[in-house]
Amino acid sequence: MADETSPPVDQLVVASVREDGPSSSLVKKAQFSDRVLICSIVGRTDGGAGLAGERVRVGGWVKTGREQGKGTFAFLELNDGSCPANLQVIVDASVSDLAPLVPTGTCVSVDGVLKTPPEGAKQKIELRVEKVIHVGRVDPAKYPIPKTKLTLEFLRDVLHLRARTNTISAVARIRNALAFATHSFFQEHNFLYIHTPIVTTSDCEGAGEMFQVTTLIGESERLEKDLIKNPPPTEADVEAAKLVVKERGDAVAQLKAAKASKQDMAPAVDELKKAKENVAELEKRSKLKPGIPKKDGKIDYSQDFFARQAFLTVSGQLQVETYACALSSVYTFGPTFRAENSHTSRHLAEFWMVEPEIAFADLQDDMNCAEAYVKYMCQWLLDKCYNDMELMAKNYDKGCIERLKTVASTPFVRVSYTEAVKMLEDAVAKGKKFENKVEWGVDLASEHERYLTEVLFQKPVIVYNYPKGIKAFYMRLNDDGKTVAAMDVLVPKVGELIGGSQREERYEVITERIAEMGLPMEPYEWYLDLRRFGTVKHSGFGLGFERMILFATGIDNIRDVIPFPRYPGRADL
Amino acid sequence: MADETSPPVDQLVVASVREDGPSSSLVKKAQFSDRVLICSIVGRTDGGAGLAGERVRVGGWVKTGREQGKGTFAFLELNDGSCPANLQVIVDASVSDLAPLVPTGTCVSVDGVLKTPPEGAKQKIELRVEKVIHVGRVDPAKYPIPKTKLTLEFLRDVLHLRARTNTISAVARIRNALAFATHSFFQEHNFLYIHTPIVTTSDCEGAGEMFQVTTLIGESERLEKDLIKNPPPTEADVEAAKLVVKERGDAVAQLKAAKASKQDMAPAVDELKKAKENVAELEKRSKLKPGIPKKDGKIDYSQDFFARQAFLTVSGQLQVETYACALSSVYTFGPTFRAENSHTSRHLAEFWMVEPEIAFADLQDDMNCAEAYVKYMCQWLLDKCYNDMELMAKNYDKGCIERLKTVASTPFVRVSYTEAVKMLEDAVAKGKKFENKVEWGVDLASEHERYLTEVLFQKPVIVYNYPKGIKAFYMRLNDDGKTVAAMDVLVPKVGELIGGSQREERYEVITERIAEMGLPMEPYEWYLDLRRFGTVKHSGFGLGFERMILFATGIDNIRDVIPFPRYPGRADL
Repeated sequence: MADETSPPVDQLVVASVREDGPSSSLVKKAQFSDRVLICSIVGRTDGGAGLAGERVRVGGWVKTGREQGKGTFAFLELNDGSCPANLQVIVDASVSDLAPLVPTGTCVSVDGVLKTPPEGAKQKIELRVEKVIHVGRVDPAKYPIPKTKLTLEFLRDVLHLRARTNTISAVARIRNALAFATHSFFQEHNFLYIHTPIVTTSDCEGAGEMFQVTTLIGESERLEKDLIKNPPPTEADVEAAKLVVKERGDAVAQLKAAKASKQDMAPAVDELKKAKENVAELEKRSKLKPGIPKKDGKIDYSQDFFARQAFLTVSGQLQVETYACALSSVYTFGPTFRAENSHTSRHLAEFWMVEPEIAFADLQDDMNCAEAYVKYMCQWLLDKCYNDMELMAKNYDKGCIERLKTVASTPFVRVSYTEAVKMLEDAVAKGKKFENKVEWGVDLASEHERYLTEVLFQKPVIVYNYPKGIKAFYMRLNDDGKTVAAMDVLVPKVGELIGGSQREERYEVITERIAEMGLPMEPYEWYLDLRRFGTVKHSGFGLGFERMILFATGIDNIRDVIPFPRYPGRADL
Repeated sequence: MADETSPPVDQLVVASVREDGPSSSLVKKAQFSDRVLICSIVGRTDGGAGLAGERVRVGGWVKTGREQGKGTFAFLELNDGSCPANLQVIVDASVSDLAPLVPTGTCVSVDGVLKTPPEGAKQKIELRVEKVIHVGRVDPAKYPIPKTKLTLEFLRDVLHLRARTNTISAVARIRNALAFATHSFFQEHNFLYIHTPIVTTSDCEGAGEMFQVTTLIGESERLEKDLIKNPPPTEADVEAAKLVVKERGDAVAQLKAAKASKQDMAPAVDELKKAKENVAELEKRSKLKPGIPKKDGKIDYSQDFFARQAFLTVSGQLQVETYACALSSVYTFGPTFRAENSHTSRHLAEFWMVEPEIAFADLQDDMNCAEAYVKYMCQWLLDKCYNDMELMAKNYDKGCIERLKTVASTPFVRVSYTEAVKMLEDAVAKGKKFENKVEWGVDLASEHERYLTEVLFQKPVIVYNYPKGIKAFYMRLNDDGKTVAAMDVLVPKVGELIGGSQREERYEVITERIAEMGLPMEPYEWYLDLRRFGTVKHSGFGLGFERMILFATGIDNIRDVIPFPRYPGRADL
């Protein structure tokens, strides 16, 4: 991890494979580059104090720089992204021209010696520069993200530089940690990572919210350009070309009649062939029409790249089930897409989802897995990203570290939907006001979910066994005939973090459910095959990865926890 | 990992959290389900022999089943995907009806006792069933993948069931292992995993090979349907509605003239308001036109979801560079797309790429990283997937295990492009025939690459410093002015596995290169900002993940090493 707070000293080995950088026996060198990581100096439990006297090369970007002592030396706060802390760097005017070094955002690479700072200093170690290796300058007048306090909203317009800010770089490290925690958790539990497709022809949730993937528009635009450059032949052009064929045909016929030798006839035959080819080509071009190809008034998708209408996936679940019904425990972790015109702080058009799927598992197993996974991620952040979490606690959400600790250590509450509705009704009876009505059979609104997890229980809550009317066709019908084996994990700060269910494995029941919901059967034939042949009870869930980051960091807007947010009207870079 | 060959005994702890399954003190229970993994029995170094006497529940799919002893018992070869080996299961007719158990593909879950088989048996352990918990039946007459030997080509038409075959499940485990090896390698080396965008508006490689992402077609199809159902108003309709407004206006005017009270006027004012709204609505609808919205004869992308033309990414490199130039060492691992009309065994329309990017690193560092990464993956497979590799060696590529060993242990050869061309010219002079001409300044063809790595050196070869004319604008210009600091890693069996370069960090040089190559400057302004503000030397590469799997397994067709292959005309599921 980039920000381990206390790398064991025995890991701090340096093999100076490069001859142009200074080596050190105590500081861990970044492999595949010529510098040491700043986190391996200031990220140590002793703040780097034990490294005094070591020679190192470091590189990074200046957070703040200032000339001091009437321009005789400069202080630079240097950060290389490996941890939230900066390394204090001191450059003497005798070593380098100081003015180009101090602007915020300047990239510098320097060789120097680590020294104990004067008593009373905040930092435990600082670097005295002996040689400046590289300076990547910044003109402060033009730098898009100057030192002043910038809002996260402002930074969304500077996606390509915002990773240089404290917040966005900390979020990037937390996001990285959660991604690796995800893989580690599932690998430790013998799940196989399956890459489900991004482009899909299974239009399972209704095309309304799906992005279409096509080459038809591009092709038609190319054709249109081509037709302007080379207008299609007119009917007269084609007729003229046909006349040439006739003339050439006559010429050949004459030669034939005159019993000309093959050799003598060859040129004429050749000309005839060319004339015929020309007609064929002209006829083909005369049929070219600008615009997207149509057939019977509808777009002719047989001419699209995949020979049918294709979309960006909204979930890998149905596809990953095919692997669960063969390899038992699997998961997918990849991008998913919704073409919803949502401008909220909780929705993205492109976001990442983690979707495990377990054969031989029922809803209880599913809840156990979800709970263990969320706890694992919380503990992982506490273990590996404490510094970054402190930054979040300081700047965004005082309670975020406490929240991680609580979730990591407290069993989740589990209540049925029916019990949850009763609890909410009780709250209403006691005077609690909700904007949305609480009623059995209606889905819980976000305010209800947050009331349960934030007020009533003050910890994560799993609500299970929802009315079938508000859930998807593939969820297993319970024996009561009214509810399905679905579950949602609700957590403080974001509400619903996970949605899952036991899947309906009974062929007769699932086909009836599909019919009941007015869905067509044909697109699901492959999915039904899993029930026709060697069916098995299985369960799974989906976790919105960005939701987890919001939960962990306390950041308010989902656009700030993904490197390149996509939402209506915006897809920068 | 799913197929660790020898789980240390101290890991074989069972906490029987479920009361309905038998527990065992020696066999590792699959968490989040009620069974034990078959790999934890037959995948042990002793083949499971040490587990005789243990009670377990297992579940899986029958590979082969047969009734024996005149129908008094049945043998089932059971596989749950956790490893390539099956567990031999014996069911007595007194325990269960045998006929439904034996068809290939049947799912069974059983409780039983592990027993030492009779002497001379191939297996080291077998399961005597005491109770059959679940049977997911198969009608052999209808099962799409019967027991007979099936070709990989045939299986491409049965994507949803092919993971139940030996080959595809082994490939899935190898793919999973390589994915986790990738994350492990980069995390160990302090790289941060960055999710670069899938939908992009940076059309960096020319729209010709890119898929377009749009909601315009869907919207226009919806509009068309709506207009057929509710035809737009005619001009006469609008005029009639305007007439009503006039009449209502007159009525209000009359009341006003008659000095009616506000209360008396209210109904008439209300009617007038409604009539006006009706006109506005009709005028709006009368302007609706079927088809994709256009402006000045071109498609009006301002009305598309992202308010501009958007595509599926062909590479995350340019975007991940923005993070490298802030966080130093980063990588991306995600799906990428090419809309090429390629029908070869080496191309997919959707494939996964691993792209590290390192700040403060030059081409040497880049090559060191690429070599270390490939070696790491090879060793990982030898350590964690040996059983699956044996299956590949047996069925597809005798030499694949040797190849992994060689690559893991031998330093890669490094030759400049100029040297490589000389070597190929020498080979030609000695009588070697190539279909493509070898000539300085022309890119190496696949046959040249494979000759270098398979014949000349018989190990991985890194070719570096290519002529600038055949490489991308962002590659760093060498001091000779003719070559760029690019490198390709060539490996036996697949040829090019990795392509990378040191990036051009000098603002003046890169802008000149963009101009020289006739590219527009505007789309790259954000990319140029990385050179304008705090620029740094940096390097990176891309590894085609499916290429790596082809290299490892010896499988011939790339469509067989990704769970859901996408290529021209095909995007099943």
